[in-house]
Amino acid sequence: MDASEHRDFVEQLLSRYRHATLDRILTLIPDKEPRRYLYSSIRDYVQRGGKGIRPAICIATCVALGGSIAKALNSAAAIELFHNAALTHDDVEDGSTLRRGEATLNAELGNALAMNTGDALNILAIQSLLANAQDQDIKLSKRLLHEFSAMAMETVEGQALELGWIRDNVLGLEQDDYLRLVLKKTCCYTCIYPLRIGALVSGNESIDVDSLNELGLYIGVAFQIRDDWLSLCGDRARFGKEIFADIWEGKRTLMLMHLLAHCPPDDRQWIEAFFRTPRSSRSAEVIRRIFDTMQRCGSLSYAEEAARHFSARAHHEYERIFGQMPENEETRFIRELITYVGERDS
Amino acid sequence: MDASEHRDFVEQLLSRYRHATLDRILTLIPDKEPRRYLYSSIRDYVQRGGKGIRPAICIATCVALGGSIAKALNSAAAIELFHNAALTHDDVEDGSTLRRGEATLNAELGNALAMNTGDALNILAIQSLLANAQDQDIKLSKRLLHEFSAMAMETVEGQALELGWIRDNVLGLEQDDYLRLVLKKTCCYTCIYPLRIGALVSGNESIDVDSLNELGLYIGVAFQIRDDWLSLCGDRARFGKEIFADIWEGKRTLMLMHLLAHCPPDDRQWIEAFFRTPRSSRSAEVIRRIFDTMQRCGSLSYAEEAARHFSARAHHEYERIFGQMPENEETRFIRELITYVGERDS
Repeated sequence: MDASEHRDFVEQLLSRYRHATLDRILTLIPDKEPRRYLYSSIRDYVQRGGKGIRPAICIATCVALGGSIAKALNSAAAIELFHNAALTHDDVEDGSTLRRGEATLNAELGNALAMNTGDALNILAIQSLLANAQDQDIKLSKRLLHEFSAMAMETVEGQALELGWIRDNVLGLEQDDYLRLVLKKTCCYTCIYPLRIGALVSGNESIDVDSLNELGLYIGVAFQIRDDWLSLCGDRARFGKEIFADIWEGKRTLMLMHLLAHCPPDDRQWIEAFFRTPRSSRSAEVIRRIFDTMQRCGSLSYAEEAARHFSARAHHEYERIFGQMPENEETRFIRELITYVGERDS
Repeated sequence: MDASEHRDFVEQLLSRYRHATLDRILTLIPDKEPRRYLYSSIRDYVQRGGKGIRPAICIATCVALGGSIAKALNSAAAIELFHNAALTHDDVEDGSTLRRGEATLNAELGNALAMNTGDALNILAIQSLLANAQDQDIKLSKRLLHEFSAMAMETVEGQALELGWIRDNVLGLEQDDYLRLVLKKTCCYTCIYPLRIGALVSGNESIDVDSLNELGLYIGVAFQIRDDWLSLCGDRARFGKEIFADIWEGKRTLMLMHLLAHCPPDDRQWIEAFFRTPRSSRSAEVIRRIFDTMQRCGSLSYAEEAARHFSARAHHEYERIFGQMPENEETRFIRELITYVGERDS
């Protein structure tokens, strides 16, 4: 089987899970006023592309451990709604203009209505979890709410770190700082909690949910490093976000940290000066020069290597957890997803 | 008993309930990193003044119906945390600079970190409700989560209307539009749901929680009209917010709606032109002129009269619900609070 067949398999299952999740999400959005200023925007936004990696991990884990898609659906919808809320707030916070190939909600509605729409998406996520309580035992439903609120708080802590470092122009960060940031801002809600919640709703009591944390950490780190890399080297149309936006926004990416630690002192000086200037006066020319310097200093290939390293660790964890089980479509999906997230081009 | 004795009584109970609620809130805020960019700001913010009207209504209703302060505390803390989140997001959305007599979080931390702090406050509110499930029966705890998420969604719908009307400069609104807005953006989380949730946690099964809705509506409307009025006629130091900010922000207050409906056509023309200009080019001089025109057209005294009218309707509802019960400190508090919110100067 060649690489494109692996990719097609992953994308086929992503699409199946995404449609099931979206159908559930659409039933949760009220068909009432205020449409123009709230519910129509929500309805449009959740239907924009997006690969649906988070609900897919939740559903596949549930089914792989003996559950069904139906058992995972309210939780998967809650995780995807939370993700949509996080993107909406993130785009306001970063002043981003392009998301999933279209104008961000802040570019479309203005910051105030976009923020408020993000608040509504978070409430819908909670309502999706509460719908769980109707079909599942109430003790499990309470546990899921605890998991979900812990997940949300980790994400907000990660966001606080990232925004704080940008605001105060904190430089001299090391790889451990990056990993701590990514654990919180990305891994928790993208992989760790989707795995944990998928296991909990499967009803399989032989699995210790904490044993899934490292798998989630390594997939999540590979995912984020690839995301950082795509934001510089990706194709705008496929990636759906502005290329070089991370540099313009001052994001502390692995490539930037590598660059500052490995470039000649002269380069370090003008790069630091660039990040001290207010965002509005950063020029496309200097941003391009930072990208060229990253290339020269090996920061881009370093990130590619790091993504491969964390994918390998994720595969190792996968074998530890799922290696003894007979392979089925869902375990295969989780295994192939590890390579997919580290090599995707969108 | 003169007016100041009534006010002292209300303020004494507000203070008692506020301290109990704050103590509970402080136990919910983690003592860990990230402090500087998240938890320290939260800790400081929740300890700023504020009268604590919402948790007080929740606690007093619970006790008045035979419950205890302890039974209401996690819910009261959740409502107050939600209120803090709403203020934080509202101040970013409105670009406000002064709150509770100090710099708003957006003025202090920047918009991005302030937004994120608001997100964290919302998660803490959910965590406070989940703590409930430990001491209360799990069916009640689920019901409280449903009530809370309905309350949050009503508030977000109200906020969507208000922000949408401002963004699109919607004029020609009538008193019914104002009441619909205030029902959603203010009454639900300030009065209606604190009453409902207080009744639910009291354990008193003879009360129909829906019967409390109108009482909450009328107190909430009186509260909001007084708030609108204070934002023009209040004392900046006592009120803790910028005076005239509502006009500058384009808020659809009862006074503005009255003014546009009752001023001479010539005045209407320049006032509408003012709201068509971008916010940054609105001048203090024209804002003052709008205020003077409101005075001349009777819009300010109309609002005072309207607040009295809704207070009277609230008293009528109070009698219907609590009139047959023997009066105690808590029923007296609810009764006197009706007059208090419509006449307060801070």
